[in-house]
This record gives sequence, structure tokens and C-alpha cells, in this order.
Amino acid sequence: MTTRIQRINQLNLEKDSYQAISKSESLAMTAKGRKVCNSLEDAIKRSGLKNGMTISFHHAFRAGDFIVNMVMEKIAEMGFKNLTLASSSLIDSHYPLIEHIKNGVVTKIYSSGIRGKLADEISNGILSEPVNIHSHGGRVHLIKSGELHIDVAFLGVPVCDSFGNANGFTGKSKCGSLGYARVDAEYADKVVLLTEEFEEYPFSPSSISQDQVDLIVQVDSVGDPKKIGGGATRMTTNPRELLIAKKTAEVIFNAGYFKDGFSLQTGSGGASLAVTRFLADKMRKENITASFALGGITSSMVDLHESGLIQKLIDVQSFDKDAAESLARNPNHIEVSANQYANFSSKGASVEYLDYVVLSALEIDTQFNVNVLTGSDGIIRGASGGHCDTAASAQVSIIVAPLVRGRIPTVVENVITCVTPGENIDILVTDHGIAVNPKRPDLIKSLSESGIQLSTIEELCELAYSITGKPKEIAFSDTPVALVRYRDGSIIDVVYKRKNIE
Amino acid sequence: MTTRIQRINQLNLEKDSYQAISKSESLAMTAKGRKVCNSLEDAIKRSGLKNGMTISFHHAFRAGDFIVNMVMEKIAEMGFKNLTLASSSLIDSHYPLIEHIKNGVVTKIYSSGIRGKLADEISNGILSEPVNIHSHGGRVHLIKSGELHIDVAFLGVPVCDSFGNANGFTGKSKCGSLGYARVDAEYADKVVLLTEEFEEYPFSPSSISQDQVDLIVQVDSVGDPKKIGGGATRMTTNPRELLIAKKTAEVIFNAGYFKDGFSLQTGSGGASLAVTRFLADKMRKENITASFALGGITSSMVDLHESGLIQKLIDVQSFDKDAAESLARNPNHIEVSANQYANFSSKGASVEYLDYVVLSALEIDTQFNVNVLTGSDGIIRGASGGHCDTAASAQVSIIVAPLVRGRIPTVVENVITCVTPGENIDILVTDHGIAVNPKRPDLIKSLSESGIQLSTIEELCELAYSITGKPKEIAFSDTPVALVRYRDGSIIDVVYKRKNIE
Repeated sequence: MTTRIQRINQLNLEKDSYQAISKSESLAMTAKGRKVCNSLEDAIKRSGLKNGMTISFHHAFRAGDFIVNMVMEKIAEMGFKNLTLASSSLIDSHYPLIEHIKNGVVTKIYSSGIRGKLADEISNGILSEPVNIHSHGGRVHLIKSGELHIDVAFLGVPVCDSFGNANGFTGKSKCGSLGYARVDAEYADKVVLLTEEFEEYPFSPSSISQDQVDLIVQVDSVGDPKKIGGGATRMTTNPRELLIAKKTAEVIFNAGYFKDGFSLQTGSGGASLAVTRFLADKMRKENITASFALGGITSSMVDLHESGLIQKLIDVQSFDKDAAESLARNPNHIEVSANQYANFSSKGASVEYLDYVVLSALEIDTQFNVNVLTGSDGIIRGASGGHCDTAASAQVSIIVAPLVRGRIPTVVENVITCVTPGENIDILVTDHGIAVNPKRPDLIKSLSESGIQLSTIEELCELAYSITGKPKEIAFSDTPVALVRYRDGSIIDVVYKRKNIE
Repeated sequence: MTTRIQRINQLNLEKDSYQAISKSESLAMTAKGRKVCNSLEDAIKRSGLKNGMTISFHHAFRAGDFIVNMVMEKIAEMGFKNLTLASSSLIDSHYPLIEHIKNGVVTKIYSSGIRGKLADEISNGILSEPVNIHSHGGRVHLIKSGELHIDVAFLGVPVCDSFGNANGFTGKSKCGSLGYARVDAEYADKVVLLTEEFEEYPFSPSSISQDQVDLIVQVDSVGDPKKIGGGATRMTTNPRELLIAKKTAEVIFNAGYFKDGFSLQTGSGGASLAVTRFLADKMRKENITASFALGGITSSMVDLHESGLIQKLIDVQSFDKDAAESLARNPNHIEVSANQYANFSSKGASVEYLDYVVLSALEIDTQFNVNVLTGSDGIIRGASGGHCDTAASAQVSIIVAPLVRGRIPTVVENVITCVTPGENIDILVTDHGIAVNPKRPDLIKSLSESGIQLSTIEELCELAYSITGKPKEIAFSDTPVALVRYRDGSIIDVVYKRKNIE
């Protein structure tokens, strides 16, 4: 027997392997409840967080998120410094980050967008390194390519079990799809769940599963589901938005892809949402059903699904409380990760199967480049989102926007910041006219033949300027405050600090 | 503007990045149907397979699998050599591999088990390198640790869409859970699906998803679902098996963990299956329900689930056609990957939550070491499976076996091959007596107090030898034919070639 054991030991040595762990070691490692922490501080300690590391968050609760502020306050209190913050997006209520930046707790940021006071301060140069603004698909690419290595992900969920099986569509504070969180759960070194409620093991169905979760801590509240939509997804009564929506629907009917089994994505803006209403009427009349709707899913998409007009909903992010609840109720309302949704370097992203996408713009220029990030004053106030991911992949990408907003033209000669390059944009629909990218003669032909009157984008720009006057050029300094990352990781534009606010 | 673009280019250069890909490039990359291959040969070519690479398969179709032979025949025909074959398991019908080994197509094998003629030949030294026998959890550990790097996975599924969304519980040839395949889909460089049927995009629910799949090829048949169970999961009428099952049930009732919310895993052997019948009666009488049953799921587990006695089924592998169909029907019949099921180095494997596991043995020795791999003649004829994964993790691991089989003792002084070390085994139940591992005084106490008569394992060994005589020692050569890998990757035993068959 000695010889046999010696031989085995020798083989293990050769393989740089080790002796089998004992049952007692194994049971000690695997005690039930071993993941559950007593407090957020305990969870942060046990996560192994160190100065200089990268932490991440998801933004499924949008304006209702409580997690970013809660965790960052504790992290600051514990004295951590020099962290990179990688939230899938950031919103108005995250302004307490300003203090954490000033105090050196956060020194670098990756996000799809920034808004409100935080965006003002970052535009004003508060961060020593420029913020990286990525698209939703682009974020996954940055993570998978290694540039954005997440050390610790802090992921809020309404409910999970003691082993970490969680979903976003059960419990009191439903956020719906955990499409962004799932990427962090897969790629972060350490995953900490913050949950409101515990369910019995094994909790199912799980969007995040036990083999992705290291630690769990119960907190009073992870978010306010009523604020997910934040009013943005209510159906508009604004006559201008309704006009744009009606024109957009006409464009969709006549662009050549409106047939049984077509697919679409619309945003959460007023005009975008209203488009679905006009589509629904026509679909019923012509007995056409869509194979799927993609993206941020709204209650109006859920209505169309439940009335049989859209067969499946592919949901990376539930845009309101109704959509979040539908995910639990409707078996053909499918949750997908951001990798499946839109990552350019994934083996297959759903955007590739998209016929129509309806997108918004703060500015669009005569090369069809779109700005959804900076205001006319050069200050950051928006988000990249899935804009360039969907525009680059859909058969027909449509921008809907009023020609002017107050005294500010939407159609301009040069966008202040390019988020989506013009060659990805096929059609612009405004309240004062429709323009098709000259790169799409097929669309010009089909729309013209259907009797839709087209303008050139230059004509729309002139018309806008005739109302507002030509906008004054903004004087920027040489200090970059934001790098705009295209979906493949390349830097497609840079936002500089304004000269007059230096 | 030139300055601005120059600056951006400079920033991209600094980041070792590149210019944004164009929409036309993007659309060319992402054409619908781009994954679908004309033939298996086309799929193999496009996979980039090269001599010396590692290819993998799953064994969800068990005795009904058609994929391994189909793909290997084509690969051999195409002239590939020196491949490592990593199937999650191999069975009798895979004997054509013998020729591929002889011809140098396959030179190394990883598998949970080998059987039949293939096992005979490998025991006889046909492979130049010893076969690596791993557990189901251990396989995932070997993959994640980098030792077992899968270049191309060939995964048979009954149905998928043109983008690769697939499950195992829809279509004509249902295999049920794709728990093993999911690991390969996640970790293989290239994933080729072999499907019988195509469904419309987006197919759901998906166990393997579009962002994991590179190529798809339609084939006539991927497997015969009727042969998944292969008769092994029919309820026994053998009085000896029924006796062992009854005793095992008594042990379970009295070992201290039989209370509301307990959990269990039983194998597919006759006695294991019959245990569930006795359990069910008692559970009904005492109003006890199990929180979950784990593992290979059988139709008898499905019956208990559907009658409300087991709340959830956690299924890495559906052990028969009925179980495969249940997965589509029962929302609390949950599919898990092998990583979630049993991997020692996963962040959380379900085996850790297991109270009882009932396992079989070809041999068990007086140190409670268990052999499920080699016959009494030293020839390989079995599989490691989830044996050591579950035994190491469950609160109570129970071996059920007849004391003797024909003229061969099951309880011996030293097992020929140790697959699960004795310290993981708590109780042995035979038709001639029950022995508890002295390392578990708690179980000795509770079972004794309940009136169950216990023997020592030495007494059972003596009793066995008194019936069969002491088995003759087998003369082995110095040529290793199999390395037995424990769940943590360490080599726990080695199978040598027999001397008399040299």
C-alpha cells in the first residue's frame, strides 16, 4: 500500500496538484449561511476591498436607486480612497458622489451617463481623470476586454436566498430585469448582493445564481420601484410629440420592414412611446404581429405583448414598475444580460436581429452624427445607453426629435459631442420634416414612393437655424472631462471643460 | 475640426485602441443566419479545429447519445489527429472510439466514466496516456482551473433558433437538463450546436444562449430519448433491493435530518429508487415535505414533486424521458449547470445544502473508501459521477449495496480503486447489516437509540468473506491506464493495467 500512495503522491507533485481536501475542511468551507453578512460594513470588509480597486453597481432602479449612495457612504466612512466607480449608469440622485470625488474616495468613473449636479461638477473638471462614457453594450466589451476589471460588485436585489439565488421581479421592491447586474455577477471577482428580503433555498427562477455570489447583506431598502419610470414612460399628450410619433409610424409602415415577424425597439421618450400606439392600430388592421420588442421594456410594450401583437419581449432593463411585474407574469417576457442585448463582441447580441429602432437625440448634425450626452451649453446631461449599439445594428435606425427646443436647434451643422456616428443613422423624423441619410437610397426610394415628403438634412438644419438663429460656438478649454467610448471601445469623441467656467 | 479628430486619434493610439467599426462592417459581421452551417463537415471546418486540440461533448442523452460517434466519425474522416476528447461521460455505445484511438485521432481522454468494450480496451492499455476519470463537479473545476481547456464543444440539442438559443426540453428528442452542456457552452472557445429542429428567433426559455454559440448545424437525429433511462430508472421488484431500500428509509428517518424542509439526492440504481417509495409513505403520514431533491432527476422524483412532497427539483441531468418532460412542465423543476450542482471551487454548489445522499458502490472497504469505477477483476466498468461531490458535502452520505454480488464481496478490506475517500462516507446499508463510520458518533447514537441494529464495517466484511471467500489479489503491472481525479483535481488513485492481460 505504501508504494501505491507514494506513487499517487508523486503523480500529484508532477501535476503541481495537492492532496484531496478532507470532509471536515469541505464542510467548514461550505457551511450554510456562510455568505450572509451582519452588516454592510461587514460585507465590505469581507469582500477584500482595497484602495485603488474598482467597484460596480447596476442601474435597474434608475431614479429609484438607493444602493450607490448607501454603499458609497459606508465605503467613504470606512476610509477607502482612490476607487474606480463603474456603475452601468448614474442619475440625478447620485449627487452625493460629488463629495466622495472631492474627498478622493472616487477618482475615476465609468458610466453610461451622468446627470444633474454630478454631471455639472464633472463637466466642471472635478475628476482628475475624465469620466468614461460607454454604451450599454460597450460596457460589457470593456469588461470582457479587461480594461474594466471589476474587483467588487455591489448589486441590489429585491429578494434572494441565503446562497445568493436572486431575481428582480419578486418581492416588494421589484426592479424587473437584472440585465446589467448579470454581467457584473459573471465578471466581478467578488459579488456582494444587497437584498431586502430572504426567501427559502432554493429560490427560483434565478437571474443571478448561487455560483456567482460571494456575500449577501440584508438592507432596509434597495430602491423605490415607483421611481424606475419616473414619469418618463407615461403616454404623452403633447401635440408636437404626437405629431412626430404619427410621422414615425408612417415611416415604419413604409420603409420596407413592416411585415409579419418584424422587430422593434423604442425608447422611453414621449414620442417614442406614442409610436407604439399608432403601430398597434395598424398591426391590428393588417393582421401583423412583431416577433419581438427589444431593449428597455415599457408598460406600453407589455400591453402590446399581452394583446398578442408582440410575441416576445427581450428585456435588458424594465423601464417601469409595470414592465418589472410583467417579467414575473409573462413567460414570453424574456430577461437577457447586457451581453446578449447589445455587446458588439458577444457571440450574438439581440440588436443584430433588430429591424427598427426609434431613438432620441439632443442634437443631430448634417452628417447625421447624434449627440445624446451634452446640452447645447456643452455640459453633460445625458447618457449613451443603447444608442450606438442599436443604431449600428438595426436595419433601420430612426431618430425622433423636435426640430427646435425652445430657442435651441436640434438639427445643427456639427454636434457638440458625437455619441453615435452618422453612418449608423438612417432616418430623422422631426415635427417639421423627415430626412433620410443619403447612404440609404433604398429607404429614400421606398418612402418617396409611398408619398412621404422628404427633406434633406441640410434643409432641416437651415429651417432650424431660421427659427433659432445659428448657435454660438462654445469655447472649450484643453482639459478633457469625458471620453466617449464607442461600442467597440474606441474613443469616438472627447468632452472638454468649457472655457468660461474655468 | 482637424485638431479635434487628431486629438481623438491620439487618445486612441495611447489606449492601443482602434477606430470605430463602420455600420457596413458591423452589418456584415452580424448577418442573420451567419451561424448556420451547411453540414457537419462545414461546421468542423469553420470551428477552426486543429490537430492536438481538445473537443468536448455532453452526455445528457446517456445510452441514447448519437453525437459523439457522429462527430468523431466525421472528424476522423477529415483526417484530424492527436485530439483530446473531453466528454462529460462516455457509455457502451461509444465503442467506435476504439478505432479512433487506434488510428491516433484521439490520444487523450477526460470523462466521468467509461464502459463496455471501450473501457475494456482502455483497461488493456490502448491509450498512450492514462484516461482522466473525474467527478461531475471535478470536471468543472478542471475546466475552470485551466487544465482542461476546451477548444471546440460539440453540443447536441433537440431544438434551437438560428442564433443558438437552445433548451433540452422542447422538440422531438428531449434530453431534459443541459446541466453539463452549459459548462462547455460557457468555457469552450468555440461552441457548435448540433440540432434536430429550428424554432423561430427568439426561442425561449434558453438553457444555452445566443451569446455562447458560434456555429449551428442541423442533423437528422441527436439522440434517442427513450434510451436516456435505459431501464435503469424503473422501480425494482427485486426483493433484495427492496429490503435494502426499506432499511435505508429507516436510517433516513432516524439519522436526525428527516424533518420538514430536508433535502435529498438518490441515484438511479434499483435500491436508491425504491427508497423514494418508502420515504413518500412516511412523509405523507408525518406531514413532512422536502425542500428539494438534487442531482440526476428521475420520474419517481417527479412524482413526489407533483404530489407536493418535494417542493423543488434541482436538475443537472434528467435521468429519464419523464424527467426531461417535467422540466418543461413544472416551474419548480429547476435546471442547473454542473458548476451550480457540484463544483467544489464554485462560489456555491447545491451539494452544500444537501442533507441526505444515497449512493451506490461496486466495492466499499473497511476504511469506508468506495470504488464505483473498477470491477472485482480490475477492469474499468463504471463512472465517478457525482459520487465524491455529494458524499463530501451532504450531512449524511449513505452507501446502499448488497453485501455480496454473486460470488463477489462488496465489502472488502481494501477497494481496488478509491473514488470517494472513506472519510466522506457516513453509513453503509446492506441486505445483511448496517455500519456507521466511527467518525460519526452522532449518527451511531441516533440510529442505535432508534433501535436500528448496527454492525461494524469489519463485521460486514467478515460476513461477506465468509460467503464468498477472501478475494484473490489482482496482479497489476506498472502501466497506469486511468488517473482518478478527486473533486479538487488531486489524483486520488491510479488504475493500472492488469498483469495477466499484458
